[in-house]
Amino acid sequence: MIFSRNGLTGLALGAAVAVGAATVASAQSAPLSAQESDPNVMGWMQGFPPPADKLITQPDSNYFSFPKLRWSVCHLREFLPTEEISRGVGAPVPLDYPTPAEFANLARQIDALTFMPMNGDTPMTWEQSLYANYTDGMLIMHKGEVVYERYFGCLEEDGKHAIMSMTKSITGLLGEILVAEGVLDDTLLVRDVIPEIGDSAFATATVRQVMDMTTGVQYSENYSDPNADIWVYSRAASPLPKPEDYEGPDGYWEYLQQVKPDGNHGDAFHYKTINSDMLGWMISRVTGKAVTDLASERLWRRMGAEMDAYQTVDGKGVPFAGGGVTAGLRDLARLGQLMLNGGEINGERLFPAEVVETIAAGGDQSKFGGFATIPNGSYTSQWWVFHNDHGAYAARGVHGQTIYVDPTAEMVLVRLASFPQAQNGFIDPTSLPAYQAVAEFLMER
Amino acid sequence: MIFSRNGLTGLALGAAVAVGAATVASAQSAPLSAQESDPNVMGWMQGFPPPADKLITQPDSNYFSFPKLRWSVCHLREFLPTEEISRGVGAPVPLDYPTPAEFANLARQIDALTFMPMNGDTPMTWEQSLYANYTDGMLIMHKGEVVYERYFGCLEEDGKHAIMSMTKSITGLLGEILVAEGVLDDTLLVRDVIPEIGDSAFATATVRQVMDMTTGVQYSENYSDPNADIWVYSRAASPLPKPEDYEGPDGYWEYLQQVKPDGNHGDAFHYKTINSDMLGWMISRVTGKAVTDLASERLWRRMGAEMDAYQTVDGKGVPFAGGGVTAGLRDLARLGQLMLNGGEINGERLFPAEVVETIAAGGDQSKFGGFATIPNGSYTSQWWVFHNDHGAYAARGVHGQTIYVDPTAEMVLVRLASFPQAQNGFIDPTSLPAYQAVAEFLMER
Repeated sequence: MIFSRNGLTGLALGAAVAVGAATVASAQSAPLSAQESDPNVMGWMQGFPPPADKLITQPDSNYFSFPKLRWSVCHLREFLPTEEISRGVGAPVPLDYPTPAEFANLARQIDALTFMPMNGDTPMTWEQSLYANYTDGMLIMHKGEVVYERYFGCLEEDGKHAIMSMTKSITGLLGEILVAEGVLDDTLLVRDVIPEIGDSAFATATVRQVMDMTTGVQYSENYSDPNADIWVYSRAASPLPKPEDYEGPDGYWEYLQQVKPDGNHGDAFHYKTINSDMLGWMISRVTGKAVTDLASERLWRRMGAEMDAYQTVDGKGVPFAGGGVTAGLRDLARLGQLMLNGGEINGERLFPAEVVETIAAGGDQSKFGGFATIPNGSYTSQWWVFHNDHGAYAARGVHGQTIYVDPTAEMVLVRLASFPQAQNGFIDPTSLPAYQAVAEFLMER
Repeated sequence: MIFSRNGLTGLALGAAVAVGAATVASAQSAPLSAQESDPNVMGWMQGFPPPADKLITQPDSNYFSFPKLRWSVCHLREFLPTEEISRGVGAPVPLDYPTPAEFANLARQIDALTFMPMNGDTPMTWEQSLYANYTDGMLIMHKGEVVYERYFGCLEEDGKHAIMSMTKSITGLLGEILVAEGVLDDTLLVRDVIPEIGDSAFATATVRQVMDMTTGVQYSENYSDPNADIWVYSRAASPLPKPEDYEGPDGYWEYLQQVKPDGNHGDAFHYKTINSDMLGWMISRVTGKAVTDLASERLWRRMGAEMDAYQTVDGKGVPFAGGGVTAGLRDLARLGQLMLNGGEINGERLFPAEVVETIAAGGDQSKFGGFATIPNGSYTSQWWVFHNDHGAYAARGVHGQTIYVDPTAEMVLVRLASFPQAQNGFIDPTSLPAYQAVAEFLMER
């Protein structure tokens, strides 16, 4: 069966996991701990061939459900067609580190930091939080220097990890760069940029509304409804051959052409992945480049990246601008540092400072809501803004992915994870207070 | 339809193109010239979205037939799941070049070289041969220095190209390294290495017979026969979901377990890709590593590579050891230089010199035959040996791929190409004499 609604098959991954679906049918009560579910402990895909019960295959199994998820987040390209985000062929620019002795001392101090989880009554140490959150990779930079770096589970320093909806923030950053450079006019209507959007509900939204996800577009995620939009989107997005009787849209962009309205544009923030793909299409239209190539040209080739990244594609080769990127931990730290530095890295300016200023200033808080762990937040240019004392903002992706930028503490924190449940609302209570604690520690440094 | 016998679909790519199939139904008379079929001229995949007649998609079109082939050879990962062959995260070791003036002067001289094609009566210039052979990339090293380098069609210096059956030579090199190190005993029978090979015809072949392709195994390539082994192999190898009524082997290794005998082991050389996959399986069994990881550890991470390579996989994540690799032109030159230098590169020894000595010495010429353009040749350890005056040997892949090592001229030549027809027999007449001509020119330098 090519499309399954019985849980999320890998084929549905494209759209589904990016929008926060729970993929934890088998883990709703007492999931395995981080240590128990470590893919090396589980033995996934070990042996030549692996035993049948240790195989994770795309056709036959739910490869993106916990605990298989903990292996698959490092191996997406082995399941799906992908496009490269090239770093080019030159030498990477190594990140700065303290002396080994200082680095080890900082690690000890950070591991021992304590914080109170949201709504909790028992303090937790930083190191405990790493396991509570099924962390695969954690890297913290302070004032441009790596002060903490650890790898777990499937991730090693030369490996890569799915970043899920943090992809949106790369798409949004590219969009904001183009706006700042006058290449993309965010006051235009979508139909002025993409005439063939036709009578899609997107047609009359502004580019800015798409960037900020305040469009009024229908996109239902009722997983028990076989006709829910999420399933139509998944089928459209699948790079695999369509069933012979398939009559739906083929690819992300055909899907976008038939979106129905739901409410008024501009009224409220609604976190719907299709906005990111709409933005991706507009970016490609005005630049004549795939978002993969643009991310390579504007970011990966110029920030000293040490590894290529990659992005999943639909059946027509269109990269999944809403969730398809896989990248290395240190390269994501470079991206965060680029944001913290207002568009500069390694002594080079990659884009105007106003790009970061616009993102860090945040969106309209009055239109934001429904995220209990981000009570004062906003969303703009596909970035989450906390509006906290430190002016922090973040890229976020399901199952615990984040690039967290704290301008006050001059801290960039990147976490890659494979938390059993998709929604970050489950992960924030033991994450956001931990980030604040380490920020305060670093400010005393 | 998931499996097609109506020409080679992309799904059949795994096995079919590696063994020399013609994929030129549309090009059997008067194919477009190299210039006419340049994918940039053809306009494949240009535009966002491309016009329908310029789309190359995996599900719906024969993406690996000429002229689409000329685009697809640089984009295999966009059609198929793949595994990385990592170069690691450090700085590449740049290749040595002459001064720009000297380089340009050499280019002019080499372009103007003339040679007589096999069985021809009209001399051809070197530069004419590049177009005659639908060259996508050509790099020549002499005494460790790049003396010629050009890119055409879909390939650029930071791009990658399918290397087709040159993959076999990487698998064979890894195998020969393991033999030299005593990790793989080439006198063992396959069943002693892989007990579960069962009563497959491979069971009673020696490891060496597999390496040299002198096994007596049935593997028919009659493309008009729907039950030909090539189709069974293609269906087994496809990483896409199998049809519900599918009952055949799943994956390369299940296929190998049911191979029937055809003749006696050791009698003669038969170029059958399944030997390469059999070797790949044995390599993984004795090392506990996928061939991708081993190629990374033993070659790509240690030869100063500037780009990761990648390898297509079956539905169980097994890399296609007989034809699945895509890599960069300069990295393939590094691999050739490593061979020319007897296992040393950048001042480091990667494997014992006897590995290259064994390969360069060639196999049993009396068992070789059927290749009109290589009348005195042999095949050993998955490398082609010409037994010519210069002691040249080569990795070769369909549609014109080669790493050609000429120890006498101290020359390494890498050509990546997308010739309309698969068989190198069509390409050798304007290639092998050209290589000899440039070797003789360089020896006078």
